[in-house]
Amino acid sequence: MTASIITLTTDFGTADAYAGAMKGVILSINPQCTIVDITHEIAPQNILAGSLSLAAACGCFPKGTIHVGVVDPGVGSSRRPVLIDTENYFFVGPDNGLFSFALSGEGAKKVYELSNTAYFRPHPCQTFHGRDIFAPAAAHLSKGVLPVYFGNPVYDPVMMTLPEPLGKGDAEAEGEIIHIDRFGNLITNLSRKFLAGFAGRRAFYAEIKGRTVAGLLETYAGAGEDELFCLFGSTGYLEISVKNKSAAALIDAKVGDTVRVECRRQQ
Amino acid sequence: MTASIITLTTDFGTADAYAGAMKGVILSINPQCTIVDITHEIAPQNILAGSLSLAAACGCFPKGTIHVGVVDPGVGSSRRPVLIDTENYFFVGPDNGLFSFALSGEGAKKVYELSNTAYFRPHPCQTFHGRDIFAPAAAHLSKGVLPVYFGNPVYDPVMMTLPEPLGKGDAEAEGEIIHIDRFGNLITNLSRKFLAGFAGRRAFYAEIKGRTVAGLLETYAGAGEDELFCLFGSTGYLEISVKNKSAAALIDAKVGDTVRVECRRQQ
Amino acid sequence: MTASIITLTTDFGTADAYAGAMKGVILSINPQCTIVDITHEIAPQNILAGSLSLAAACGCFPKGTIHVGVVDPGVGSSRRPVLIDTENYFFVGPDNGLFSFALSGEGAKKVYELSNTAYFRPHPCQTFHGRDIFAPAAAHLSKGVLPVYFGNPVYDPVMMTLPEPLGKGDAEAEGEIIHIDRFGNLITNLSRKFLAGFAGRRAFYAEIKGRTVAGLLETYAGAGEDELFCLFGSTGYLEISVKNKSAAALIDAKVGDTVRVECRRQQ
Repeated sequence: MTASIITLTTDFGTADAYAGAMKGVILSINPQCTIVDITHEIAPQNILAGSLSLAAACGCFPKGTIHVGVVDPGVGSSRRPVLIDTENYFFVGPDNGLFSFALSGEGAKKVYELSNTAYFRPHPCQTFHGRDIFAPAAAHLSKGVLPVYFGNPVYDPVMMTLPEPLGKGDAEAEGEIIHIDRFGNLITNLSRKFLAGFAGRRAFYAEIKGRTVAGLLETYAGAGEDELFCLFGSTGYLEISVKNKSAAALIDAKVGDTVRVECRRQQ
Repeated sequence: MTASIITLTTDFGTADAYAGAMKGVILSINPQCTIVDITHEIAPQNILAGSLSLAAACGCFPKGTIHVGVVDPGVGSSRRPVLIDTENYFFVGPDNGLFSFALSGEGAKKVYELSNTAYFRPHPCQTFHGRDIFAPAAAHLSKGVLPVYFGNPVYDPVMMTLPEPLGKGDAEAEGEIIHIDRFGNLITNLSRKFLAGFAGRRAFYAEIKGRTVAGLLETYAGAGEDELFCLFGSTGYLEISVKNKSAAALIDAKVGDTVRVECRRQQ
Repeated sequence: MTASIITLTTDFGTADAYAGAMKGVILSINPQCTIVDITHEIAPQNILAGSLSLAAACGCFPKGTIHVGVVDPGVGSSRRPVLIDTENYFFVGPDNGLFSFALSGEGAKKVYELSNTAYFRPHPCQTFHGRDIFAPAAAHLSKGVLPVYFGNPVYDPVMMTLPEPLGKGDAEAEGEIIHIDRFGNLITNLSRKFLAGFAGRRAFYAEIKGRTVAGLLETYAGAGEDELFCLFGSTGYLEISVKNKSAAALIDAKVGDTVRVECRRQQ
């Protein structure tokens, strides 16, 4: 059997023993697998943030990787635990939209409800499915159990949509900040693809919180000190940044703030 | 040799290089072993918190796992470094009570003082036993060195007791909050077992900080919005929670706060 | 092939998916390697702090370990990406001085620019060399690709020097605080070696922020409660500490604060 990889993305934090417990359960079932933390610091119950983090990292992993996500405000309710089988990966977690953005990059997929209790921990706790349902499912999957054994197909998985950017006329768009990273970069929902029509037009302007940001750079190096600028970041979305400083702190920006972009033909 | 697993539970944090140094030492001795972080964010010198975290996670790991714990206010003093050999696990760390709760779930055990300097790093630093005594001991143990080679038996290891809950009459009890997790759940020292006599009585009340909390739920799903409720959490202790919010923030609760519970026969 | 070890030291934090993305890239190229986090919590863009953390931990790892460091204010500028081959280790990251202190303990070394795009991720992003240049280089190196294949030799790598302590007369010295750890210990740039002339003189005094600290201890155990004292810490530098409390909080000390030490012959 080849070595298999299981990633974890949760809102458990790292101060409590919850993530450690999941790892223990996984290694009890498959001591050979490699466990990789993507992050445990998703804000509690923030499914959108979890979905974005998973989408930002999951595609870097080798084919066959099992991505476990646990951001789960509905734990213990009737929301289904699921396993999603795509062309490249498996995703294991709650059926609440957490995998939506990761899945948007994947082709055909099959979804199964995790209902076969043979693959649960005995006496699963209704407040900790991460340990008692998702971790064991991922571990058994990593040992080669076929997805179909875990439960019945699901035909209506819950999907989430990103706040949609608006295109206005032929060279204007309006989006919003969907994530602020550790460096204070403001990541918008305006993708390179959505703004493709802007290519070749030289004069690019963004407006945020009453400020106008001129210019779309390729790298941080071209920016002046203490100057806001735009670039497409490492996941393909437009970001507003300040070189070696926090754009978020500079203009007191928050997730949800509106960003308008405009592109004019050079005169 | 089968792969072996070493877990780490410390108060080192993750911003300094201390945990990384321990991992380097372990891998220098046994490059094949799997190292798993339980947590490095125990509050500095808080042995009780470290002991609870270890107890919450250790039992999820496979038989033979080596659990290293370093919360060590007495480092460099005469407190002994120890290795504890139980039916399922090994525990390595300071003899200061850190393993007390983990051990309460384990059967017969033997304790050895880590006194054989052949298994120390050369010139051990008196302020960093984690790197120079505990990490090498765990790594050598993972390679099959027998516990008896590490030093002489210890017959009086230091044990800690949890703050004891009080039973009052036949359906009243008083405990306290022993841990608050990332989600703001208030975890008490009232175990399911201690409150076993309450089973079958329907009307359950808890009192904390002058508030009365009615009802003992099985899952978060049954709770109303912004409403305090009780349930038995994933480690078997009574918790006071608010659905998808922080109970700790809502009522400004702290570790050590008193919790009274009462159970009345339905009229 | 023997298992290989790759360590990561970055300023990415653990809340974003950046470190996870690097791990995915590494495992996609070499699923067999062991990835170890030293820390991801270097303060953003603080090369000095990153260099100190790497130096504190790297020497604990086995010969052949590949240490990746990413604290990179110049990402996307003309600063070179490099691979440094020393007697014991490889270092991979930006050519900005980040490896200076780690290298000071290493003998002969060769430096190569990472210019061979065959070992880059396709279409490397100019804002995330960690994922697209450094992670793949480390992974290919771990599979046995020779350093010389990554690019041309570099003869003038950027090196950083620690703030230099001053020796004053035959038993006085002046240094500064270069790091404050999680426990509030104040770590200075005064090494055991630099202060070697002080050995054998019994009366040791340090002065910081107008306070005089008398005595140089071997262990925390000898200290009184709430009393500042000096000792040589686990990396060989003089530290000012308070037993089981934060010296930094007690005297409101900061990185950069001056520390004077003086040693008098006993009368």
